[in-house]
Amino acid sequence: MVQIDLFRNETEFKSFAAGDTIFREGDTEKLMYVVLEGEVQLSVKGHAVEKLGSGGVLGELSLIDAAPRSATAVALSACKLVPITEQRFMFMVQQTPKFALQIMRVVADRLRAMDERL
Amino acid sequence: MVQIDLFRNETEFKSFAAGDTIFREGDTEKLMYVVLEGEVQLSVKGHAVEKLGSGGVLGELSLIDAAPRSATAVALSACKLVPITEQRFMFMVQQTPKFALQIMRVVADRLRAMDERL
Repeated sequence: MVQIDLFRNETEFKSFAAGDTIFREGDTEKLMYVVLEGEVQLSVKGHAVEKLGSGGVLGELSLIDAAPRSATAVALSACKLVPITEQRFMFMVQQTPKFALQIMRVVADRLRAMDERL
Repeated sequence: MVQIDLFRNETEFKSFAAGDTIFREGDTEKLMYVVLEGEVQLSVKGHAVEKLGSGGVLGELSLIDAAPRSATAVALSACKLVPITEQRFMFMVQQTPKFALQIMRVVADRLRAMDERL
């Protein structure tokens, strides 16, 4: 799992309880999350594809293109997630090249993992 | 297919004949290509996954992480490809946020296509 450290000291977060659905395939919400605390399971069409811990990124595709969620995210434990809006995401891509590269690595890592499954 | 227009007027290119292998799975070359002219077939483990035309991007994962090629690229017709080195890629991500976003879209598009196959 690719982790990012830019939001470690963030004080604004959303809490989820174990078993809560964070988002579902097909949802059109445009929001990325970074895991501050806890564990999140990502699945695609009912197949578990990745488990995320602190520093993990989810929902980034919704900010990169405008398409609906391609994965479902469920909290495996009590979680604190930092929500990143589209506005903040675009600002950070422009101001912080390290952030852009980290997001590219997250998506590249997922693509390689899916290629492996073929 | 996500296309990028930033290299349309590029004068430095590499030519490939129909049937030529541009790169193979497992190769460790760090080079991205943008298609100026022609058609390229991408395949993963022998499965055709994407056909690229003018403005198409290939080999970008090798610049995002350091891992070997996860796909094989073969010229379907006579092709002209613009090679992008790691140095130029990093410079562009820093100087041209539009480029960073376009590369994110290329990878996001591929990830969604692979998710669809699950």
